[in-house]
Amino acid sequence: MTRWRLDLEYDGGAFAGYQLQPNADTVQAALERALSTLFDHPVRAHAAGRTDTGVHAEQQVVVFDSEVARSPHQVREGLNALLPEAVACLQARVVADGFDPRRHPHTKTYVYSWLDRAARSPLRRHRVWAVRRTLDPDAMHRAVEAVVGTHDFSSFRAEGCTSTHPVRTVPSAVVERAGDEVHLVIRGTGFLRHMVRILAGTLTDVGLGRRPDSHVTDVLAARNRGRAGITAPAQGLCLASIEYEGGC
Amino acid sequence: MTRWRLDLEYDGGAFAGYQLQPNADTVQAALERALSTLFDHPVRAHAAGRTDTGVHAEQQVVVFDSEVARSPHQVREGLNALLPEAVACLQARVVADGFDPRRHPHTKTYVYSWLDRAARSPLRRHRVWAVRRTLDPDAMHRAVEAVVGTHDFSSFRAEGCTSTHPVRTVPSAVVERAGDEVHLVIRGTGFLRHMVRILAGTLTDVGLGRRPDSHVTDVLAARNRGRAGITAPAQGLCLASIEYEGGC
Repeated sequence: MTRWRLDLEYDGGAFAGYQLQPNADTVQAALERALSTLFDHPVRAHAAGRTDTGVHAEQQVVVFDSEVARSPHQVREGLNALLPEAVACLQARVVADGFDPRRHPHTKTYVYSWLDRAARSPLRRHRVWAVRRTLDPDAMHRAVEAVVGTHDFSSFRAEGCTSTHPVRTVPSAVVERAGDEVHLVIRGTGFLRHMVRILAGTLTDVGLGRRPDSHVTDVLAARNRGRAGITAPAQGLCLASIEYEGGC
Repeated sequence: MTRWRLDLEYDGGAFAGYQLQPNADTVQAALERALSTLFDHPVRAHAAGRTDTGVHAEQQVVVFDSEVARSPHQVREGLNALLPEAVACLQARVVADGFDPRRHPHTKTYVYSWLDRAARSPLRRHRVWAVRRTLDPDAMHRAVEAVVGTHDFSSFRAEGCTSTHPVRTVPSAVVERAGDEVHLVIRGTGFLRHMVRILAGTLTDVGLGRRPDSHVTDVLAARNRGRAGITAPAQGLCLASIEYEGGC
């Protein structure tokens, strides 16, 4: 039995999220269909984590097992021929049998992107939240520093979150301007349901001057979802990378 | 009578090119529909030039006339509410009556984008040509220097080109790497039909090592479309900007 690791990129707008669902096209369903064809037996794939409907990934990590012999080149090229255009395999390699992408210690880096010019952008409409007013990224950066460290993120947790507890560790969180876009880059050991999008919605209030820099500190302390901002739109969010301890 | 100038951005993948066509959705058709609604009379729009099916624009310039009073803010916001998502008005302003965006002296800057990593990219599939092998941008840059200046571009002219002569002036042309992409940035006083895409196809042969650096010089001298490379796919091409003499 060989355990394979795949690094995937996908356009979240084309799928009802990562995870298998009845009567909806998901990344996992598309991937398992392609893998089952390529390996000629039913394949079950296990990911580092799910992403919601509309959320993109520049690097999702998935494992599966097979006894059928294939080379890494065959797996990557075969998948990229079989998969729909909205998902691709960036790399395929054999890993240790015990490697579990969800349990092996890791951090994930998410990027949230705003467009803050007056006009919306046809060419970037699937990748940004166009707020159509100018944001203050310096104020947003000062505000987001409050989440760095280990905190109870109950205020940034959506209804229906299945996590057993609301405490998460965020080693780094940065907001910076990139031309007419503003980016939140946040790295964490794990994220609650909609955590980054609720944080992005809350930071938007700061960036537009509706709330002071201290707002995120206050919301975090309240442990109350009602105190945070709206859940920012999914298309602005991208799972940018997953960093495994000791490589893998 | 007031002459208005609009700066537009559009996703070429959503339209059968810029120019009006029977039985096909074009940027001009969408724009004229929105303008006619906003100004409450039939409006005819005149652009700096057409773009082909699938070709994007970060800046297309269009003029139209109306006697109906509107503020620039009303025009931009009204258009962005009325236009389909794949086209937006970046700026609307009143210009001199005689301003003709096609005849007023100007240069256009086009960008052609290749992705040259092994795997295709779901997130950038509408913006790049994924050649799936490594390009040599230095060789491509040395090759493209041959087109700088005033030349007979017959070798880079598609069948059906309606221009009266094949001579064009290219003040600058650069090929450079940007991460896992390679970009051709070319500025010209005018372009023949498919000229940038045929040049991009020809440069691809150089970048993949199939042809020497001197290839573009040889192809240009031949004045023969048969000597150039393929017409590179439309989705990699973007009209990036239009620069008018003396501003406007």
